[in-house]
Amino acid sequence: MEAISAKLIHRLTLYHCILSYSLEKREYVSSAEIASLLKIDDSLVRKDISFCNVQGLPKHGYKVLELKQKIENVLSFHYAKDVFVVGAGHLATALTQYSDFKDYGINILALFDNNEEKIGKMINGKRVFDIKRLDELIKRTRVDTVFLTLPPQCAQDITNKLVDSGIKYIFNFTPCVLRVPQDVKVRHENIISSFLQMKIS
Amino acid sequence: MEAISAKLIHRLTLYHCILSYSLEKREYVSSAEIASLLKIDDSLVRKDISFCNVQGLPKHGYKVLELKQKIENVLSFHYAKDVFVVGAGHLATALTQYSDFKDYGINILALFDNNEEKIGKMINGKRVFDIKRLDELIKRTRVDTVFLTLPPQCAQDITNKLVDSGIKYIFNFTPCVLRVPQDVKVRHENIISSFLQMKIS
Repeated sequence: MEAISAKLIHRLTLYHCILSYSLEKREYVSSAEIASLLKIDDSLVRKDISFCNVQGLPKHGYKVLELKQKIENVLSFHYAKDVFVVGAGHLATALTQYSDFKDYGINILALFDNNEEKIGKMINGKRVFDIKRLDELIKRTRVDTVFLTLPPQCAQDITNKLVDSGIKYIFNFTPCVLRVPQDVKVRHENIISSFLQMKIS
Repeated sequence: MEAISAKLIHRLTLYHCILSYSLEKREYVSSAEIASLLKIDDSLVRKDISFCNVQGLPKHGYKVLELKQKIENVLSFHYAKDVFVVGAGHLATALTQYSDFKDYGINILALFDNNEEKIGKMINGKRVFDIKRLDELIKRTRVDTVFLTLPPQCAQDITNKLVDSGIKYIFNFTPCVLRVPQDVKVRHENIISSFLQMKIS
């Protein structure tokens, strides 16, 4: 398959959201309707859809179900990826509530915290483990991805431990910029920058 | 002042995070240190810093405090923007806990929910109001920005009401793509796309 750019992945995810939540009761959808919801160009939507190898019907448009499934194939929804959530506060709890994660191939295995009142409890069906057991459980499960939802004061310390245990992908929900080796990828899931873009522009 | 691009705002926010959380105890910092933490090019960091009108000292680099303050000026940290949070679940609670929001000029005024057990309660010092009072309180406070943290089933309905009441900026944490008029801006704060980018690449 052709390489797929970050922007195309982002647009296809939004098309999928539209097909799942806005037009889910419809049999057909046109590229113009999707384009209008996202305020982007119709020709771009058509190009993206043809990348997914879906043909439209004249005067009808695309079949909603077929388009949805083809996008799921392109975006590998059916290949599940296991994830640990480090920190078991409100953000972590919100992440475990995202019922769609499972559909998108994101499988939260467990949470970790150092708060004794949380350790051993279940949050939306996911167990909270003692953070001291991170290394043992990363190695046993071979999980390579974490959602980091810790207070800033301990983010770098725990990151060092995660890297030593073999973690390769960190979704960083803390406000810290983390020091990691070249082979570890960090994504900054920081809404501050997004907010400032809106505030300044 | 020159127009400032979304990418530059994003990088300056990350530099500010570094100066606040990683190198906050240092007097001086070099562009090379910032570049190395973010795995980007040193020359880009120098160009961004010169945009902020900060001069480095030979062999020392930039003064941490001065650079931090100049970035705050460029990013308008000192101009506060009031925000309502619509929905008062775990994600909303996590948003009220972001103690940095205030530093960045984001002022959460109140939360709204339809759950009677939550209405009237305080969450981290912010009151939860009955969602029926949204229109009244938007008009009275002239707030034009909301963080939308609702279940997908009611996201579009509430959005219609927000738009009617005069809301112009929506930070959409739901998985829905929202229908809004041309003059209303929606930002999709959806981590699924970011996750899929990592999973596929």
